[in-house]
Amino acid sequence: MKILIIHGPNLNMLGKREPEIYGATTLGEINTALTAKAKELGAEVSFFQSNSEGEIVSSIQDPMSEFDGIVINPGAYTHTSVAIRDAILSSGLPVVEVHISNIYKREDFRQKSFISGVALGVISGFGVNSYMLGLSGLIDHLRDIKNN
Amino acid sequence: MKILIIHGPNLNMLGKREPEIYGATTLGEINTALTAKAKELGAEVSFFQSNSEGEIVSSIQDPMSEFDGIVINPGAYTHTSVAIRDAILSSGLPVVEVHISNIYKREDFRQKSFISGVALGVISGFGVNSYMLGLSGLIDHLRDIKNN
Amino acid sequence: MKILIIHGPNLNMLGKREPEIYGATTLGEINTALTAKAKELGAEVSFFQSNSEGEIVSSIQDPMSEFDGIVINPGAYTHTSVAIRDAILSSGLPVVEVHISNIYKREDFRQKSFISGVALGVISGFGVNSYMLGLSGLIDHLRDIKNN
Amino acid sequence: MKILIIHGPNLNMLGKREPEIYGATTLGEINTALTAKAKELGAEVSFFQSNSEGEIVSSIQDPMSEFDGIVINPGAYTHTSVAIRDAILSSGLPVVEVHISNIYKREDFRQKSFISGVALGVISGFGVNSYMLGLSGLIDHLRDIKNN
Amino acid sequence: MKILIIHGPNLNMLGKREPEIYGATTLGEINTALTAKAKELGAEVSFFQSNSEGEIVSSIQDPMSEFDGIVINPGAYTHTSVAIRDAILSSGLPVVEVHISNIYKREDFRQKSFISGVALGVISGFGVNSYMLGLSGLIDHLRDIKNN
Amino acid sequence: MKILIIHGPNLNMLGKREPEIYGATTLGEINTALTAKAKELGAEVSFFQSNSEGEIVSSIQDPMSEFDGIVINPGAYTHTSVAIRDAILSSGLPVVEVHISNIYKREDFRQKSFISGVALGVISGFGVNSYMLGLSGLIDHLRDIKNN
Amino acid sequence: MKILIIHGPNLNMLGKREPEIYGATTLGEINTALTAKAKELGAEVSFFQSNSEGEIVSSIQDPMSEFDGIVINPGAYTHTSVAIRDAILSSGLPVVEVHISNIYKREDFRQKSFISGVALGVISGFGVNSYMLGLSGLIDHLRDIKNN
Amino acid sequence: MKILIIHGPNLNMLGKREPEIYGATTLGEINTALTAKAKELGAEVSFFQSNSEGEIVSSIQDPMSEFDGIVINPGAYTHTSVAIRDAILSSGLPVVEVHISNIYKREDFRQKSFISGVALGVISGFGVNSYMLGLSGLIDHLRDIKNN
Amino acid sequence: MKILIIHGPNLNMLGKREPEIYGATTLGEINTALTAKAKELGAEVSFFQSNSEGEIVSSIQDPMSEFDGIVINPGAYTHTSVAIRDAILSSGLPVVEVHISNIYKREDFRQKSFISGVALGVISGFGVNSYMLGLSGLIDHLRDIKNN
Amino acid sequence: MKILIIHGPNLNMLGKREPEIYGATTLGEINTALTAKAKELGAEVSFFQSNSEGEIVSSIQDPMSEFDGIVINPGAYTHTSVAIRDAILSSGLPVVEVHISNIYKREDFRQKSFISGVALGVISGFGVNSYMLGLSGLIDHLRDIKNN
Amino acid sequence: MKILIIHGPNLNMLGKREPEIYGATTLGEINTALTAKAKELGAEVSFFQSNSEGEIVSSIQDPMSEFDGIVINPGAYTHTSVAIRDAILSSGLPVVEVHISNIYKREDFRQKSFISGVALGVISGFGVNSYMLGLSGLIDHLRDIKNN
Amino acid sequence: MKILIIHGPNLNMLGKREPEIYGATTLGEINTALTAKAKELGAEVSFFQSNSEGEIVSSIQDPMSEFDGIVINPGAYTHTSVAIRDAILSSGLPVVEVHISNIYKREDFRQKSFISGVALGVISGFGVNSYMLGLSGLIDHLRDIKNN
Repeated sequence: MKILIIHGPNLNMLGKREPEIYGATTLGEINTALTAKAKELGAEVSFFQSNSEGEIVSSIQDPMSEFDGIVINPGAYTHTSVAIRDAILSSGLPVVEVHISNIYKREDFRQKSFISGVALGVISGFGVNSYMLGLSGLIDHLRDIKNN
Repeated sequence: MKILIIHGPNLNMLGKREPEIYGATTLGEINTALTAKAKELGAEVSFFQSNSEGEIVSSIQDPMSEFDGIVINPGAYTHTSVAIRDAILSSGLPVVEVHISNIYKREDFRQKSFISGVALGVISGFGVNSYMLGLSGLIDHLRDIKNN
Repeated sequence: MKILIIHGPNLNMLGKREPEIYGATTLGEINTALTAKAKELGAEVSFFQSNSEGEIVSSIQDPMSEFDGIVINPGAYTHTSVAIRDAILSSGLPVVEVHISNIYKREDFRQKSFISGVALGVISGFGVNSYMLGLSGLIDHLRDIKNN
Repeated sequence: MKILIIHGPNLNMLGKREPEIYGATTLGEINTALTAKAKELGAEVSFFQSNSEGEIVSSIQDPMSEFDGIVINPGAYTHTSVAIRDAILSSGLPVVEVHISNIYKREDFRQKSFISGVALGVISGFGVNSYMLGLSGLIDHLRDIKNN
Repeated sequence: MKILIIHGPNLNMLGKREPEIYGATTLGEINTALTAKAKELGAEVSFFQSNSEGEIVSSIQDPMSEFDGIVINPGAYTHTSVAIRDAILSSGLPVVEVHISNIYKREDFRQKSFISGVALGVISGFGVNSYMLGLSGLIDHLRDIKNN
Repeated sequence: MKILIIHGPNLNMLGKREPEIYGATTLGEINTALTAKAKELGAEVSFFQSNSEGEIVSSIQDPMSEFDGIVINPGAYTHTSVAIRDAILSSGLPVVEVHISNIYKREDFRQKSFISGVALGVISGFGVNSYMLGLSGLIDHLRDIKNN
Repeated sequence: MKILIIHGPNLNMLGKREPEIYGATTLGEINTALTAKAKELGAEVSFFQSNSEGEIVSSIQDPMSEFDGIVINPGAYTHTSVAIRDAILSSGLPVVEVHISNIYKREDFRQKSFISGVALGVISGFGVNSYMLGLSGLIDHLRDIKNN
Repeated sequence: MKILIIHGPNLNMLGKREPEIYGATTLGEINTALTAKAKELGAEVSFFQSNSEGEIVSSIQDPMSEFDGIVINPGAYTHTSVAIRDAILSSGLPVVEVHISNIYKREDFRQKSFISGVALGVISGFGVNSYMLGLSGLIDHLRDIKNN
Repeated sequence: MKILIIHGPNLNMLGKREPEIYGATTLGEINTALTAKAKELGAEVSFFQSNSEGEIVSSIQDPMSEFDGIVINPGAYTHTSVAIRDAILSSGLPVVEVHISNIYKREDFRQKSFISGVALGVISGFGVNSYMLGLSGLIDHLRDIKNN
Repeated sequence: MKILIIHGPNLNMLGKREPEIYGATTLGEINTALTAKAKELGAEVSFFQSNSEGEIVSSIQDPMSEFDGIVINPGAYTHTSVAIRDAILSSGLPVVEVHISNIYKREDFRQKSFISGVALGVISGFGVNSYMLGLSGLIDHLRDIKNN
Repeated sequence: MKILIIHGPNLNMLGKREPEIYGATTLGEINTALTAKAKELGAEVSFFQSNSEGEIVSSIQDPMSEFDGIVINPGAYTHTSVAIRDAILSSGLPVVEVHISNIYKREDFRQKSFISGVALGVISGFGVNSYMLGLSGLIDHLRDIKNN
Repeated sequence: MKILIIHGPNLNMLGKREPEIYGATTLGEINTALTAKAKELGAEVSFFQSNSEGEIVSSIQDPMSEFDGIVINPGAYTHTSVAIRDAILSSGLPVVEVHISNIYKREDFRQKSFISGVALGVISGFGVNSYMLGLSGLIDHLRDIKNN
């Protein structure tokens, strides 16, 4: 079972800026934790981060034959990208959308997600733990499908 | 660590109707699974189900001194109840909102949640596993707070 | 053929208040007339009135095995209750929505019905006769189904 | 007691096209059934069908001295015709609006009716039986008025 | 100087129905008064009334070579007809829009006019005198143009 | 018969600026023409111009006992002044709203008038002739009332 | 003179939670103060608190013959309950709506009240003193009516 | 304790016009009653009335050093004046907004108040008694502050 | 292969008015060109033009058994006619919507088409060539269907 | 005559995924067919595909001196890219917007195109034939310009 | 080169109130700094402050023959005054709109400016330096015009 | 003091296209002028231009340790990029938003800026001088901070 983890724009700065808000955990540390969690759950993870909408679209096209599912934190593109939505739709893969902060507590324009409507599930507000819960939920889902 | 699980309106019918859609798992079985999961994570859970908005408000007021957090599936009241929102705000407890289906794939009026804006986090779309992930996320959060 | 008639909030006051507007017919008299009409059409009716959204939801869950259909005047909950909508959906029963007054002649917020979208049919504006027409339409529908 | 039945645009094609959706009943058969029903209820009916908004306006102007009420299925003009609304208002006659399908289950633009706000009552969703219920409701209403 | 006067839907009923609201003046009497007024101002008027949007469009196309301007009371089509708007635009003639009642005091949907944006001027609320003022304003305008 | 003519903000600049757009007629010349027209129609006119909303409100309060009606070009306050609307309502006088340009051809925010809903009638788009037509319409109206 | 005081959802927690925000005054203390104030003004008060919309509707139906007026703090139901609005309308009693906080300073969804449109008057923002002012205003109103 | 009472546009006409609607009480009589009420409550009041938004802004700037609070009936400027809102904000004084009629029962554009969001509290619908209740509420508030 | 070409309101004036805008090509010349084009593509075309919405509805009903598809330029009815939309739906024929000008560059109310949602395809902005492209696209589509 | 064909995001996956929906034709095959069609029409085509908004902007800037026009299928950027709109505007080239599916039959957010308002023409819904019709329409347009 | 500087409502209180927010600089000091800056740039400045919309309109009308341009901080009238917009339009002078705070960071109703659409340019958020930058930008613009 | 100047999409074409609109100044010449201006004000500038949203995000992340502030003309991304907004927020640097044209005079969708809400200040409409004023304003701001 192979999972692709996609981190959207500005997430490469995690832990480097505003640690009082986003905590001191860096993206590298999140990835290390996800690798460990995946191993524990009998799966394998790869990582991709980009500030570019187009590169994220391309990264979703690539795993077609290789990956069984995707965990994505689309960052700011959550609210503006129809292209990522279309890429997910066209991939046919189960995709879990995760957010570190609870986006429903923020500005009005962050209440609308172009991704949620094509995602398997959405997890928002648990800090970096949102990634772990999302990975866990995706793997459980893939197991369920295999067993049915 | 004591957690209250609240099930909103119509969730008492789970597994009894439309099994082809919502699966054959009954609310009793979900509660059994949650009890097991809680035990595994070193916590204890109590359950409350009601079709009445007022009773759900009262159930949130009750745990004040006893419970450390709440996992709630507000069902249809998600979209219409300011009273439950106010009860959560006033309880001061961390509350996790869960949904069995992915509400962002459904009718327009289900896209607006009065609860998300006062919840710690939101989990939607993982079937009955949404409850497990929510319980897990809440317990992790309570541990983090205790440790900091 | 067994039909449940549900009267929503404030309908228990019919005939007791504002007779110049709503007429002098009480809810008891409406129920008597419906019983007679049902008998004439070869059916049987039961009645339920509540001011509570949650109790109406519960009343819709109960008839599952017993009733063949429901005639509901959801009163003010027409415009605010997603929970009653969900209960109807989950019951799988044919439901006819009736209103004594023509709701489309009233305030803007009364133009939106959460119930109409899941009802078999809607009848509005014929005074207490709306109930008779609704009962009649529901029984005709049940006969058609049985015969096809 | 004389009633005018008005059928709006495209209703002349009933039973000829898409019988799997609208059934095999033709407009002629509906009219025959309405004539019988009217006779049974001690009334007399005339019929008018047109695809033209202007002709429907004119048909409502004509009955002024002759008819006691109108049953109208305004079809697509329900949602766009202020002219038919004005004709009804100016006729001073009681008008019942009927729809074969439940328009509240359809596209957003079909949720708004220019006619409902000036109708005596509205009946929607009972198939061709909507006409029978509408005729019945109108005749009951005319009797009530005569008797008071 | 030749002017076409167009009366929209339902205006043929003026004076025949609801005289307590619209007065006892018939459309024939309005036309007689307009003929007299036109004569006094050195112009000549023709009349056209129709309940059909299409016929009104055609009547605007016809005068192309003959008439110097149009006074139109578009009635209910004021709020719904892009076709009449287009016909006016394409005619290149100065058109004055008149209304017997003050449409800005009425329902919300009557506040929007598709015609006003392509009219020379708009007169609303002076009863049947709106026609006289409109004819007068149009003739003054045509004189001004001729003299400049 | 005494009429007050009120000119709103910026109208004092008529004929002094942008003559290519608004023509070369000054406010003084308009007033002279209105005086002549009033005399011809057997009435008397007074004038008031102000750039201040408050002064226009006060001017409407003053005529209470003296004037029979008001012709007002509220200029920019048409779209923003509830205070002038209230003053008109409270005066109980018939008020005619006039505009030199056709405001329905202009920016969206000029389509909404706070005045039209409390005016006897509205005249828009006839250049300075709008004032003459408005005066004429008001005097006709006052005559009609006196004669009935 | 007998007045019913109704406290909506979550108001039973006043003074028990978040005293830094809502003050240390409990609902019991408010009721005691209201009883004293009423006595001073020559009236008598009864109290009702519920978290349930349906029970509040029923409480408004009950006083029909007994009470002269109602002071209600509808809490969260202010913004969502058409049923309470209908109950007030149907009771025919003068009703004063009060709020402890100034609801116009809060979230957008709290700006809309279904109750204000059927209330005699509204008082918002004076802390628990809103109840005293509301009681006072209601009694003054009842005196005025009696004296006229 | 010194309080400034501000009366907005058109309120100078109270009791002089439309007595059947607004009652026969003049602004002078209201001020006399307020002076008496203030004396009874151990405070002193000054009065200011203007039809001009700018003068009301200036009147709010003036009391800076002298007054302890303001009771304002902003009349029509309630719905249109950001300038008065800003003056209140900048004054730093507690301000009570009062309305004679219940503005929530009136036109849509009267539902939005630019003042409520910066007021201490709002009182609407108690006739001229709204002023007395507002004065009372303001003085209570000032006492509370002084005592804490 | 037989195709019906429908021209909506005002298109009969093409080439006769405003040639500087719409070009000098008349509707007759367009039809001649379409006949030639159809012949070249092995198809046959018939033509219908009307200013009346109802006649266009009827023209769509007629071809039922005869035509294989329709090319329609609905003109102004594009934006207002649910009746034409319903006629197309009910015909079951593939329909291509064409516009001479690019409607997406024009007024806001021209951005909404009731027809596009039920059309096979839409072509807008190529001048009279839009008809040729539309005919071509329809014939290709019919060939594809026949071959599969 | 040289034409640039631009394919937006996700179009590189055509024919590789979801062949049951989008058909088995790959982007390569579309390009081959366009090259042939162009040759037949006496023109030459180049191709550009990118998932990146910025690269598409750059591709439109490049052809400035070389290309005579552009055919673009902006894919998901149709609905979100002001940058591509600006690039088209600034290029001064005639641009034809094409879509394989009929976007007016899809989600609401796909009804708004930032491109249509600056395009020569729009073609939507003819499958891959939309490209052929668009190329054809563009070449005809360029010929017309050259000949006039 | 002569420039008029206009300060809108409440700006006369700058430096006197809330110095912690708006700084300690008074309007007099701003004017002194502007005079110096203007001198340095070879221009001359005059000043006008008013809380009255009407007086600001009049101040813009006055400079007609004297001033070369205007720098205006319209304060609260930015969001509500069509009259000031019209005065600017009619003056034909280049006008620079400045704001001390960044209005785009504030309440929703402050995001809309009636002035920006008729201004040469807008500067917002640089504290009192916004005036200096605005003066500078206006003088540069006037130089450019003179030199071209 | 080191400042980064960022030019958004299509700005690389300045001076090369549509010189009659945007002037003949190229981006290179703007940069040269900015370098000179910066030197004169005792600062140093670097430049970055990209058509790609992702690259602009990355460019804002880079300067973290090096630059004291940013002047950005986000071009079309002003209206669509939440990602650039987030990058600015996360950088913690003061950012000045500049626009060559006055965006408030343009299409509706250009009235909304995702950047203004997180910018220090905004300058729009002064042609290429907007950059100079923005640089100047930013440097003044940085000096003020250093001195306080």
